[in-house]
Amino acid sequence: MIAENQISEEKFQDLLHSYRKFVEEHLFPIDLQVVTGAFRSFLPMLHALREKAKSLGLFTPHLSREEGGLGLSLVQFAQVSEILGQSPMGHFVCNCAAPDIGNMELLHQFGSQSQKATWLLPLQRGEIRSCFAMTEPQFAGSNPIHMATIARKEGEEYVISGHKWFTTAADGATFAIVMAVTHPEVESPYQKASMILVPTDTPGFSIVRNIPIMGESGEDYLSHAEIKLDNCRVPLSHRIGQEGQGFALAQARLGPGRIHHCMRWIGICERAFDLMCRRAVSRDLDPGKALAEKQTIQHWIAESRAEIKASRLMVLDTARKMQELGAKAVKDDISTIKFYVAEVLMKVINRAIQVHGAMGITDDTLLSFWYRHERGAQIYDGPDEVHKSALARSILANYSKK
Amino acid sequence: MIAENQISEEKFQDLLHSYRKFVEEHLFPIDLQVVTGAFRSFLPMLHALREKAKSLGLFTPHLSREEGGLGLSLVQFAQVSEILGQSPMGHFVCNCAAPDIGNMELLHQFGSQSQKATWLLPLQRGEIRSCFAMTEPQFAGSNPIHMATIARKEGEEYVISGHKWFTTAADGATFAIVMAVTHPEVESPYQKASMILVPTDTPGFSIVRNIPIMGESGEDYLSHAEIKLDNCRVPLSHRIGQEGQGFALAQARLGPGRIHHCMRWIGICERAFDLMCRRAVSRDLDPGKALAEKQTIQHWIAESRAEIKASRLMVLDTARKMQELGAKAVKDDISTIKFYVAEVLMKVINRAIQVHGAMGITDDTLLSFWYRHERGAQIYDGPDEVHKSALARSILANYSKK
Amino acid sequence: MIAENQISEEKFQDLLHSYRKFVEEHLFPIDLQVVTGAFRSFLPMLHALREKAKSLGLFTPHLSREEGGLGLSLVQFAQVSEILGQSPMGHFVCNCAAPDIGNMELLHQFGSQSQKATWLLPLQRGEIRSCFAMTEPQFAGSNPIHMATIARKEGEEYVISGHKWFTTAADGATFAIVMAVTHPEVESPYQKASMILVPTDTPGFSIVRNIPIMGESGEDYLSHAEIKLDNCRVPLSHRIGQEGQGFALAQARLGPGRIHHCMRWIGICERAFDLMCRRAVSRDLDPGKALAEKQTIQHWIAESRAEIKASRLMVLDTARKMQELGAKAVKDDISTIKFYVAEVLMKVINRAIQVHGAMGITDDTLLSFWYRHERGAQIYDGPDEVHKSALARSILANYSKK
Amino acid sequence: MIAENQISEEKFQDLLHSYRKFVEEHLFPIDLQVVTGAFRSFLPMLHALREKAKSLGLFTPHLSREEGGLGLSLVQFAQVSEILGQSPMGHFVCNCAAPDIGNMELLHQFGSQSQKATWLLPLQRGEIRSCFAMTEPQFAGSNPIHMATIARKEGEEYVISGHKWFTTAADGATFAIVMAVTHPEVESPYQKASMILVPTDTPGFSIVRNIPIMGESGEDYLSHAEIKLDNCRVPLSHRIGQEGQGFALAQARLGPGRIHHCMRWIGICERAFDLMCRRAVSRDLDPGKALAEKQTIQHWIAESRAEIKASRLMVLDTARKMQELGAKAVKDDISTIKFYVAEVLMKVINRAIQVHGAMGITDDTLLSFWYRHERGAQIYDGPDEVHKSALARSILANYSKK
Repeated sequence: MIAENQISEEKFQDLLHSYRKFVEEHLFPIDLQVVTGAFRSFLPMLHALREKAKSLGLFTPHLSREEGGLGLSLVQFAQVSEILGQSPMGHFVCNCAAPDIGNMELLHQFGSQSQKATWLLPLQRGEIRSCFAMTEPQFAGSNPIHMATIARKEGEEYVISGHKWFTTAADGATFAIVMAVTHPEVESPYQKASMILVPTDTPGFSIVRNIPIMGESGEDYLSHAEIKLDNCRVPLSHRIGQEGQGFALAQARLGPGRIHHCMRWIGICERAFDLMCRRAVSRDLDPGKALAEKQTIQHWIAESRAEIKASRLMVLDTARKMQELGAKAVKDDISTIKFYVAEVLMKVINRAIQVHGAMGITDDTLLSFWYRHERGAQIYDGPDEVHKSALARSILANYSKK
Repeated sequence: MIAENQISEEKFQDLLHSYRKFVEEHLFPIDLQVVTGAFRSFLPMLHALREKAKSLGLFTPHLSREEGGLGLSLVQFAQVSEILGQSPMGHFVCNCAAPDIGNMELLHQFGSQSQKATWLLPLQRGEIRSCFAMTEPQFAGSNPIHMATIARKEGEEYVISGHKWFTTAADGATFAIVMAVTHPEVESPYQKASMILVPTDTPGFSIVRNIPIMGESGEDYLSHAEIKLDNCRVPLSHRIGQEGQGFALAQARLGPGRIHHCMRWIGICERAFDLMCRRAVSRDLDPGKALAEKQTIQHWIAESRAEIKASRLMVLDTARKMQELGAKAVKDDISTIKFYVAEVLMKVINRAIQVHGAMGITDDTLLSFWYRHERGAQIYDGPDEVHKSALARSILANYSKK
Repeated sequence: MIAENQISEEKFQDLLHSYRKFVEEHLFPIDLQVVTGAFRSFLPMLHALREKAKSLGLFTPHLSREEGGLGLSLVQFAQVSEILGQSPMGHFVCNCAAPDIGNMELLHQFGSQSQKATWLLPLQRGEIRSCFAMTEPQFAGSNPIHMATIARKEGEEYVISGHKWFTTAADGATFAIVMAVTHPEVESPYQKASMILVPTDTPGFSIVRNIPIMGESGEDYLSHAEIKLDNCRVPLSHRIGQEGQGFALAQARLGPGRIHHCMRWIGICERAFDLMCRRAVSRDLDPGKALAEKQTIQHWIAESRAEIKASRLMVLDTARKMQELGAKAVKDDISTIKFYVAEVLMKVINRAIQVHGAMGITDDTLLSFWYRHERGAQIYDGPDEVHKSALARSILANYSKK
Repeated sequence: MIAENQISEEKFQDLLHSYRKFVEEHLFPIDLQVVTGAFRSFLPMLHALREKAKSLGLFTPHLSREEGGLGLSLVQFAQVSEILGQSPMGHFVCNCAAPDIGNMELLHQFGSQSQKATWLLPLQRGEIRSCFAMTEPQFAGSNPIHMATIARKEGEEYVISGHKWFTTAADGATFAIVMAVTHPEVESPYQKASMILVPTDTPGFSIVRNIPIMGESGEDYLSHAEIKLDNCRVPLSHRIGQEGQGFALAQARLGPGRIHHCMRWIGICERAFDLMCRRAVSRDLDPGKALAEKQTIQHWIAESRAEIKASRLMVLDTARKMQELGAKAVKDDISTIKFYVAEVLMKVINRAIQVHGAMGITDDTLLSFWYRHERGAQIYDGPDEVHKSALARSILANYSKK
């Protein structure tokens, strides 16, 4: 999806400036309100902001120019993504939020012409939303090869039954991309499953609940659903890619996805860092004696700055390599940024909260939202522990017992 | 409030056993439901549980026998408190929860006969609830000597105006104990304020809001209010203790209060630890290969066990010293347990969440409740950083420049 | 070896006072010089100090009164051990240093009358030194069941051949207690080995080298040897305990040994802590602005104080349980203190060094000695990682897959 | 000193390859021996290696081509420096080791023609060595504005008296560059001192001792001296740069100096990392069960890899900016890498030691050498704590109390 029609460095710097201006002027004033309110009630306002973004040429930055995007390289999009990440509404308003962005990439790369016309185009235009259903409650999410959802062929249809959860933003989505076992008889666990597009109004498709996460069930885009598929029938043509290719496609989807996540996390870090610094200079312990003079707080600021910088350099370095050498070449780098940046994220948010004192745990800043809703960063898309072991094993494969 | 009429060690062990049985049989089955629902709707059920606790002789364990309590020493009550802390409803059901317990101790020690009859007795019987209003939004909570709430004398009345927040459980309370400046002219910042009992139905007393904390405003006992006092008039006889004694009383109230908190935190640690171990043995990564076999998870369990044990030994040691030598003698020990145990609490909860994977961030276990609502442990009653500096300065006072 | 003839609490407090006075007056002035010089050159001075300790009734505190000791309980000896640990020469001068103390305990419990008369008595009197040879270079020390040293019976003799290392204080020792496989045919790896006393002048016994550790080979008591046994012949009566009992005895030896180590480490922590505080108040960053005013240094002091306190309470609690219930009952507690205290030790030493700045890495204080020579605390007697896993597995054994 | 005559990227990659080959073939086989032996006895061998480096075109890589160097950019030299850092002898053998490299840079930028001819040229050719005397025992090294060494003018001479320590490699040096107060009357503490070149055979110049650091006094290049200057007389022409410019020059010297240090540390990290991995795969806990299979060790490897990568990217990014924008523009970046990389260094060394078990604390690997001799990394050139506060203050200067 990374276009060849790249823009000049100068124009790109202008673009970054426009994004910064947009989030500061249009998103910062409303984002706290949105995440602490009922999401659906803000949809009209958010749709107006999407129109604003379109009018400013900031919509769907990840798409090629032909598709109505900006023709950015992965490295460039990553930098945009960091800026958007500073607001919980950034990616949504510019229509490059997960899970839609991953689904767009999937359909763009592997979708049929008909799938593209029917599902991808309205998704790109922001007219519909989508979701991605892989994880199942009875299996460890870190090891997705174990899966009980079955899609069996009956004539020209798949009949799909199964139980999924943590299906982000299913509430309000028009279609789901569902991972289901189509070839239970194949030996390799990596070749049993296929990806199938299931419209959410298919009979048998139901949302059991929006899972209450950290005290909130959320709704619409800000929710994670538990889903049941009970003999859902879709035409065979709804399969994306080849039979048994499910894991290969999921892997392809995850690669850039983790870069998107990491850059979004860095955006969060920057906003939390800014809040921390503002608080440090403006809160007095004694009259005229600001928090900022305390060495502990200075050190948190310094350590946060160092770790955020390290995070950004590593993610951009990974994006550069992925751009040049493909996703396979950066498998280790992806694992590295996944666990490194997720940990930095939690550290920075925690320090920013502590600097805010009691206010830090209230909903008067965004910090408590991120503290709760980004705790999952160390868990989803593979827990930190799994990525660390994967990286180590890859490194150690180069060593042999002497 | 610690009675002399202590019970034998054997009877005490039986008592601990009864408490364990009570929380496991009666509280564990309902507590998740209560903290994830609307608190008020559970009040009838909780009041029935209070009657159950009374009938089992487990109510108000902190009171002397004459007052209807169990006549426990501080060390003994601490051990009860740990058990009750394993459920978010433990202290509430046994009527020894903050802020009521601190207010009972205050009124017991410093209240007039009339105050005791009117306010303390129904509080002890669990007929009413109370709150404690000290922290103000425009000043750092860690340095309470700065305060803008004023109580000026007019004839036989105090006229109180001010703005407080983080007044725990004000919603539904019958009275508030309010810290207010009565003597602005006194030089010492520690002798300007007095404590005044203000019925919440006093004209001018209003709850601005239950502060949304970590995504939830809560209600009733599970809430923290922002409060306005606008020319509230109460008789001078509502002052607790002497004029200008406010900080001295607050200090007296905080001493055992921190022991109660720390033991409650240890109770939370134990429950989280238990959840972590259960999950570790029951969750398979691959069929027959449980999480418990992973060394990282083993190490989290071992480190948690060590840190919880260290916490308990330190808190009980502090309780013992306080019991023998008084609160002043353990000022440093109190600072020590405050920051040490609060940090252990957050570490254990975080590890338990990580072991649970995606389930850990849902509301399907208590972990996410504690992750959110105990984050304040490192902030309230003095942030960790303040206690660390206080302890160090006290130690360094014994050293002189050679 | 813990005597029944315990002393009164009052007398014990006097005794602790005498030990404190002794180490401060007699050991602190000379210990830095000893550990930075050639150990053997200080032997006359150290032997004079031993006589001093004897005359003050401070020699061999771990022995019963009949044996010339003080008749202390394990909990009491632990407290003495902490005080002695404040000087690197404390245990040596009072003749209760590893490995001699462990060997005395072994011979006391399991030695024959003849072994006691010949080896234990002069060891107790401080006339000879001994060593303990278990670890072998080609096997992981953390898993001692793998062992290549063989003692085969020939008539009335054992003929022992093998290769050992990290045999502490072998240089200058009169005898070694050697773990050797006597029953290779037995199935259980725990019943293959026996303990055999080998005089160091036995033909075939040789010290290959004092292993250079952290830049120093050391000598005599302050050394760790690599040893070869080449067909060393000793009478069968040199076996300690029963055949195949080697590991059982080693375990018995290690139990209290780890308590001794932990209390010694706490002594080191206290001395390093004291050095850190002295430095903090006496070093000015700017004229009149001492290091002690920096919040980071205050926090290191506070955290160190908390962690040292936690360590002491846990070790004494373990000693108390071991005293009451025996070594088996405290297996988990022993693992806990082993890794917890070793980590605290390294943290405190590191902080103290950092507070000293450049001086901290010189040999002008004891800190650099401990930084180097206690790094092994996280490795010997089982690396921290092994103890953590052992503890966790023991805890998890109480949980079953639901 | 960064030359314009840069080499092509391709040639540069060849050059890096040559350096790698050189350190692996010529330095790895001898470096452990050198650092655990008597340094002077290895000088002939090391000089032969210098000739080898010269013949391979690897000598003085930091110099411009005209000066006999390689004409590398700072970013390029940084990469060379990392490779050389993998051996404790790398920089020495290629004659780009501190303190000589800093002194070369100083003389190159600020030295007079005569100073260059007399001192710089033989230094560049490796015929002599030099040292840099700034830190004084009675003042905190982190705040060098306090200084008691005085150089007073008498006719055409400076008469210098003072006391310095931690003068690296003074033993065997031909000259020292000495910071001394020449203008005590100036108000600004930053303009009181000048830099003066003092030949070490000047009467009154004496080495009090090579300071025993971590158990070793060392000698020659591997030493840190305490120095006395007692009325040392040198011509006024020995002053480097202008009067009162001492701190400005020291700052100029330190800037790239810290980049050199950081890249050298990264080299150490890489070697320690390699030793850790080799050990992990080759050490069996049980037959056929290598350490590498333990998750804790895998995680140490993964975390080390991430942190080393972050370090390298940050240092190279800083070098790039310094190259483009000058040293002043990267003041904050320099502070960042100083504390971040120093901490990573200690973490990686400590993990590598732990993976080696008992062998890790012996002198059978380089780890114990680095553990001891790089502990100072968190102290010299400004302790971590000072750099963190400096960075934070610089960041917070952009924020004003709202």
